[in-house]
Amino acid sequence: MTQTLKKSETLETLLAGHVAAMETNIDRWLVEPGTPGALADAMRYCVAGGKRLRPALVRMSARAVGWNGDGLLVDRAALAVEMVHVYSLVHDDLPAMDDDDLRRGRPTAHVKFGQAMAILTGDALLTGAMGLLAQAPLPQPGLDVRARMVAELAAAAGALGMVAGQVADMELCDVPQGQAGLEFVHTRKTGRMLQASARLGAIAVGAEPGIVGALGEYAAKLGLAFQIFDDLLDVTASANQLGKTPGKDAQANKKTYLTVLGYQQAEQLGQELTNQAIEALAPLGDKAAKLKTLAKLLVKRRY
Amino acid sequence: MTQTLKKSETLETLLAGHVAAMETNIDRWLVEPGTPGALADAMRYCVAGGKRLRPALVRMSARAVGWNGDGLLVDRAALAVEMVHVYSLVHDDLPAMDDDDLRRGRPTAHVKFGQAMAILTGDALLTGAMGLLAQAPLPQPGLDVRARMVAELAAAAGALGMVAGQVADMELCDVPQGQAGLEFVHTRKTGRMLQASARLGAIAVGAEPGIVGALGEYAAKLGLAFQIFDDLLDVTASANQLGKTPGKDAQANKKTYLTVLGYQQAEQLGQELTNQAIEALAPLGDKAAKLKTLAKLLVKRRY
Repeated sequence: MTQTLKKSETLETLLAGHVAAMETNIDRWLVEPGTPGALADAMRYCVAGGKRLRPALVRMSARAVGWNGDGLLVDRAALAVEMVHVYSLVHDDLPAMDDDDLRRGRPTAHVKFGQAMAILTGDALLTGAMGLLAQAPLPQPGLDVRARMVAELAAAAGALGMVAGQVADMELCDVPQGQAGLEFVHTRKTGRMLQASARLGAIAVGAEPGIVGALGEYAAKLGLAFQIFDDLLDVTASANQLGKTPGKDAQANKKTYLTVLGYQQAEQLGQELTNQAIEALAPLGDKAAKLKTLAKLLVKRRY
Repeated sequence: MTQTLKKSETLETLLAGHVAAMETNIDRWLVEPGTPGALADAMRYCVAGGKRLRPALVRMSARAVGWNGDGLLVDRAALAVEMVHVYSLVHDDLPAMDDDDLRRGRPTAHVKFGQAMAILTGDALLTGAMGLLAQAPLPQPGLDVRARMVAELAAAAGALGMVAGQVADMELCDVPQGQAGLEFVHTRKTGRMLQASARLGAIAVGAEPGIVGALGEYAAKLGLAFQIFDDLLDVTASANQLGKTPGKDAQANKKTYLTVLGYQQAEQLGQELTNQAIEALAPLGDKAAKLKTLAKLLVKRRY
């Protein structure tokens, strides 16, 4: 907790290796031979760019429990969580949902390819993510964690997780009032997938349940903190910095941590959750150093 | 091949037990506790009704390789294929896709719940189907076919399968001309999921690869035949019989087996494919009697 960041360390330098690994993973697995060309193009377009926070969490978690880079199950999981994340962005951006034109600094999928292709590209990414895990070669004889990993990903993404979060965020179901409502939305919409990312990295390398749980707890807290700082950035950053339309939440009269708690209290809650995230890593000792750094850098990020 | 149908046997009587089993499966697994109420309602609404052809194929295949009804993996697979089928109907019916108002005799999901909820309900069904298979208790020690089943389902549903079929059907990618184009579309859009249904039933009970393949071949041929008779029915049946808007394909100037081949040649091709489907069952001998009956009844159906 009293550790300070190395002056030179930034989110970019910390994630650089994981971002680079994702390019390899995308080339290797995103598009299966035989995919119609136009669909393959749309899938590649949608997956390009982004911070790669979820795949980085998969890979950093695996590293924290001793992964030496061998085997490909961790990298399959890294791509799978990003594919699920991107599918959710593509569908959420649709005119019938959040109606966004700009994403990762480029036209959203439906602006670029039309709504039908955007819907189908999202569907293909979600389906492909499950297949990518399920059809992985066995990492080691006797350790078949593939079904467990699919179950983990599906639970985080589905009707109890990310989809429920979006349903709640769009007020298509009953949601508690005030701060409890924000927590209801964001633990599901963002938190569960970040939690699953960290858990999957650990499960892929056979970590014991206590460690899987600690990493998941870390990422869940971090996810809420991340959302809070995202809400704050929405009003302070430019489109250029964000790569998406800023001030949209405020325009839409959307409840955010900023509007519900005010800037100062929201920032304080974000900081507290970040501290709790770091504390959750205690069982991992020094091996979690990079994950701690990640948490601190996410608090400080300004775009 | 020379067998005749029992006079009393209809598609309804043949499928009745499987349709009933699906109601139990839906009650048991479709909606996990904790799902937002409005989302749960939409999921239940969309999955209600239908011929249940895909789940029946799962269960009839399992029966044909000796399944005695014990264990729940077959029934999980039966529900999973129906959830994937229904998700595809919900997304395909959207205004940006085929823009259909009527499905299974009732308003389509987006008419009933709005487009956002329809998109999310489809997403939840697809995700839930994968989770349902992945989190199944092991059917017997040492036989973990769950990952294989997820891989099978994802391959049939994804960018090489059903999604590719819809992309091609909407002419969002290059498609061959004439009959080859129809085959390109329908092997992917309908055939692959029917094939996967039959294969999953067999895989769930540990059938050997040759038998899994034979059942898949049967269902793939049957899938094409089914599509041909569907095209023919689109112009001859009423909305009441179909449960969806009739004559829509013709209105949309859509290429169908009817428009490309003409009624007589299309009907003949459908009959040939049905015969090939039945022939594919040879390795199963008498155990495949009900699957043969199913093929014959599908040819004769008039709604």
